[in-house]
Amino acid sequence: MVNSLEQLSPSARVAGHPSAQFSATLRVHLRNTPGAFAALASAVAEQGGLLDAIDLVRVENRTKIRDVTVLATDAAHIGLIVEAAQALDDVLVEHVSDRTFLLHLGGKLEVVAKTPLKTRDDLSMAYTPGVARVSQAIAQDPAKAWALTIKQNTVAVVSDGSAVLGLGDVGPSAALPVMEGKSVLFKEFGGVDAFPICLDARDPDEIVRIVSAIAPVFGGVNLEDISSPRCFEIERRLRETLDIPIFHDDQHGTAIVVLAGLINALRVVRKPLDDVRIVLTGVGAAGIAVAKTLLAAGARDVVGCDRRGVVHNARDDLDPVKREFAQLTNPRRLTGSADAALSEADVFIGLSAPGAVTAGAIRTMAPSAVVFAMANPTPEVLPEEIEGDVAVIATGRSDYPNQINNVLAFPGVFRGALDVRASTINHEMELAAAHAIADVVDAGHLAADYVIPSVFNRNVAAAVASSVAEAAVRTGVARKEGRS
Amino acid sequence: MVNSLEQLSPSARVAGHPSAQFSATLRVHLRNTPGAFAALASAVAEQGGLLDAIDLVRVENRTKIRDVTVLATDAAHIGLIVEAAQALDDVLVEHVSDRTFLLHLGGKLEVVAKTPLKTRDDLSMAYTPGVARVSQAIAQDPAKAWALTIKQNTVAVVSDGSAVLGLGDVGPSAALPVMEGKSVLFKEFGGVDAFPICLDARDPDEIVRIVSAIAPVFGGVNLEDISSPRCFEIERRLRETLDIPIFHDDQHGTAIVVLAGLINALRVVRKPLDDVRIVLTGVGAAGIAVAKTLLAAGARDVVGCDRRGVVHNARDDLDPVKREFAQLTNPRRLTGSADAALSEADVFIGLSAPGAVTAGAIRTMAPSAVVFAMANPTPEVLPEEIEGDVAVIATGRSDYPNQINNVLAFPGVFRGALDVRASTINHEMELAAAHAIADVVDAGHLAADYVIPSVFNRNVAAAVASSVAEAAVRTGVARKEGRS
Repeated sequence: MVNSLEQLSPSARVAGHPSAQFSATLRVHLRNTPGAFAALASAVAEQGGLLDAIDLVRVENRTKIRDVTVLATDAAHIGLIVEAAQALDDVLVEHVSDRTFLLHLGGKLEVVAKTPLKTRDDLSMAYTPGVARVSQAIAQDPAKAWALTIKQNTVAVVSDGSAVLGLGDVGPSAALPVMEGKSVLFKEFGGVDAFPICLDARDPDEIVRIVSAIAPVFGGVNLEDISSPRCFEIERRLRETLDIPIFHDDQHGTAIVVLAGLINALRVVRKPLDDVRIVLTGVGAAGIAVAKTLLAAGARDVVGCDRRGVVHNARDDLDPVKREFAQLTNPRRLTGSADAALSEADVFIGLSAPGAVTAGAIRTMAPSAVVFAMANPTPEVLPEEIEGDVAVIATGRSDYPNQINNVLAFPGVFRGALDVRASTINHEMELAAAHAIADVVDAGHLAADYVIPSVFNRNVAAAVASSVAEAAVRTGVARKEGRS
Repeated sequence: MVNSLEQLSPSARVAGHPSAQFSATLRVHLRNTPGAFAALASAVAEQGGLLDAIDLVRVENRTKIRDVTVLATDAAHIGLIVEAAQALDDVLVEHVSDRTFLLHLGGKLEVVAKTPLKTRDDLSMAYTPGVARVSQAIAQDPAKAWALTIKQNTVAVVSDGSAVLGLGDVGPSAALPVMEGKSVLFKEFGGVDAFPICLDARDPDEIVRIVSAIAPVFGGVNLEDISSPRCFEIERRLRETLDIPIFHDDQHGTAIVVLAGLINALRVVRKPLDDVRIVLTGVGAAGIAVAKTLLAAGARDVVGCDRRGVVHNARDDLDPVKREFAQLTNPRRLTGSADAALSEADVFIGLSAPGAVTAGAIRTMAPSAVVFAMANPTPEVLPEEIEGDVAVIATGRSDYPNQINNVLAFPGVFRGALDVRASTINHEMELAAAHAIADVVDAGHLAADYVIPSVFNRNVAAAVASSVAEAAVRTGVARKEGRS
């Protein structure tokens, strides 16, 4: 997902969207009388909860025991629904299981053998003494590690837990469920074996040294949720040190999916990328990467804004990273607020926080405006506030059309890079990935509310992988011609 | 396996044991005439190869195409067999596949999701936005990482590749197939998810720092194939730093299985452990750990020998590790050669290299002697040289009775430690593991050629796990009462 770079309050609620992430299963004892279940269903409905699965567990004397799953809008809402159920005469709530927590019990990953190990022969080949010959072969020719070990299909998902989702600095242990989830997505969508590496370390020198030291096992490194500006230095130095792809997904994954969506949005409004005025809020890791990728793709007029407004050369409060950003962007030398910058702009890209721009300012944009409001969970402006005022709206959320989601990019990007044993992921590979994602939406279906494929479209990762691999070969960073 | 601590020549061959580890599959075109296959079978036999699987691939005009698997004694032997087949008139060898290398193509491990990810609901619980609540719960109470992440069942198999099997210092990439194999054994025998961490690092300070930094993901660390004396410092400092079990298998795994075998061997010869004279060759990581564990178990007379003979206090060539060893051992203040020390000894434990003691010296041992000759692949003395001269013989090999193999220990040890979230693996837990292994061989079956269970005995790991967990609870290092 595109995550806000600003720290969001963890309690930020989005009202009115009961969903599986806030679902609970209530084990209830219902008296076997007419209306008992109706009373429970009504109580859930009165609290605004949605009934999901209803399973019969067993029947005891004059009682039916059922597992009733309800969807709520947040954790507190689950509590209200449970209280309402407990208040009923004919219902006894035995216990309540939070489905999201249930799913996490024991973790989400497993490490399994690819071949069975049932006989002495299996053992003598997979382990000692036979494995010694394989070790010797690699000692004599280190390149053989690509063929004879897990390196060829394995990626490290590395985080220090310093900028996790919208939660901020929660540390490596609390980052682990997120990195496990990321690893699940790698396998599910890209067939990539990913393993979470959550580091109890903060110093960029040390993180670079640790990741370099563990690199022999991996064919690539996905950096994740590392705070800015440390993420820039860590990525740059790892790219200099290692001969495998280093990819900070918060930067490059976001840049790829934003460009993919924008390519199609501009097809819808029939404006060329090199001619549009683009305003971007959130000049952090994602915002800077998006701006650089848009410029590499041909955009010429990108204006970035942070909390203090437009980032421009005359400002004296810029850190070195934003100073470099100011040099690369803002050709019309705008100053002032983000809202002011939006006047007559063609494209707004929000990677910031709710309220970073106003709905009123959005209405001052040029005709056929494109708005990507990707702050999570609450967009910079809610789609319903500007519907009809602009041509295309995209968000980071699954409950509006046009979800800009990194899962469209990273599984295919690494699949393609691993398939050709790429030594890096360069700009050409990123642009190829963006075009591949955009082109999954065929011209016949392209529309204002369909500029980006669904995250569950199984054609995306394969298309991205093939384009990325081709770009790697073309730019000379592949060590192998294609998937074996 | 118990590995020699001395550097063995990689080409050290054991004559006369065709085995799966040196097997190849020949795809052959056989003329469809009587005797064609007989000629091939004879040629393989003349070279001393064993025929294994014979599969028909297809029949073409006047030709049968078959895959013929042959077992050889070493890699060069495979070459001789192939040459002999190629020399036949009615046989065309299309290609030859080395089965051990085939098995390693693409590596031996896979990282898979424990739950499917097919719908938006799955995605919203396993990843964003639902996962944020799980992260927050861990951030608020770090102990919850044990329940809600893979930590509870995951072990790092850490090596720097400095002392791999008998191959010596082959480096981290060449160590990877071995650590993958170890991870396969962890899963197969203990149900433990193990992941290989092969470090491009040598300085003990750095290795300690790296392993500490990656520890949040893991419930335990298995150190493997790290050269002595660095392995001692690394293990000691990691134990001081981390609150999860740190277990150097070359030391403690070996000590546990040796003690297990010795408990039963002494039952066979009816001698008490506290009364026997024990001579040990190989005062490296394994030898020192074995000596300490035997002393902890009640042994009183242990004499260690290195290449220069008995390790005793008066020697001026001892490093600090061997100096400490000399203090703990050799109560009769022996000096001289290992052969001399064997005179009237009850037990010989070899963790060294072929020829470390002579068969003649073995014959000077006390009546009903016990010999564990565990150098790999070639024992200190071959069983056939001393058969009839001693009461019990064990080796590290699968082709003699009584194989002393670490796989009997480490999967169950970690299974038990993880089940109770142990903070360490202490001496009591090691002794409990050894007794559990020994007790799998019931009194009715105990015999000179059956003092240790088979590596494929599926009762072993469960018995070890349960005893280790119980010892952890008893000694106050468990954070949980039993397996959930």
